[in-house]
Amino acid sequence: MSVDQLSATFAALADPTRRAILARLAKGEATVTELAAPFEMSLPAVSKHLKVLERVGLIARGRSAQWRPCRLEPGPLRDANEWLASYRRFWDGGFDRLDEHLRELQRGQEEQKDADDE
Amino acid sequence: MSVDQLSATFAALADPTRRAILARLAKGEATVTELAAPFEMSLPAVSKHLKVLERVGLIARGRSAQWRPCRLEPGPLRDANEWLASYRRFWDGGFDRLDEHLRELQRGQEEQKDADDE
Repeated sequence: MSVDQLSATFAALADPTRRAILARLAKGEATVTELAAPFEMSLPAVSKHLKVLERVGLIARGRSAQWRPCRLEPGPLRDANEWLASYRRFWDGGFDRLDEHLRELQRGQEEQKDADDE
Repeated sequence: MSVDQLSATFAALADPTRRAILARLAKGEATVTELAAPFEMSLPAVSKHLKVLERVGLIARGRSAQWRPCRLEPGPLRDANEWLASYRRFWDGGFDRLDEHLRELQRGQEEQKDADDE
């Protein structure tokens, strides 16, 4: 189900180490040992993060039993980006929001004036 | 810390009800009762989701003690979108990837040929 996939993607992204692993894989394939190098973490701890990323489909692993290099799979990131894109107008449309805010302020003052007149 | 904020934002988004609440607030402010209406959930359950969203800064609530209408705060969504944007080339650049893939295939065939020749 697509809603659950999106939840799973966001949950997988809610960890700085997993995001750092994805950032590394954006530069190219890497083995578990290569991925573990920049972190002060054991290989099993890194493997655990990789399993989370693989289950969600954010990475895929090679077939070679010895190396099994990891690579980025952009599909779930694209879907997460699409979800966020529908909110883009809230930060792109700064002027519209200011305009709306000013109109609201004005409306409030008019209502106050009407209330005072009554 | 900005890394933790991003983790907290993604964790908050990893729930379909919370995403539906944000989608509703994208249309305008709403009270807890209005937000609860489309869900088969108790008001306390919805309030719990709102607290998560408020703590992360994805929503803000009005001061009026009686209504406390909720409104969308786009800042954390913008930051999450910025993080995802650095991966956009992976789905926008479809042709480049295909090209790379074909080159890899070719390289594999050449290596196979070299191995056969030896």
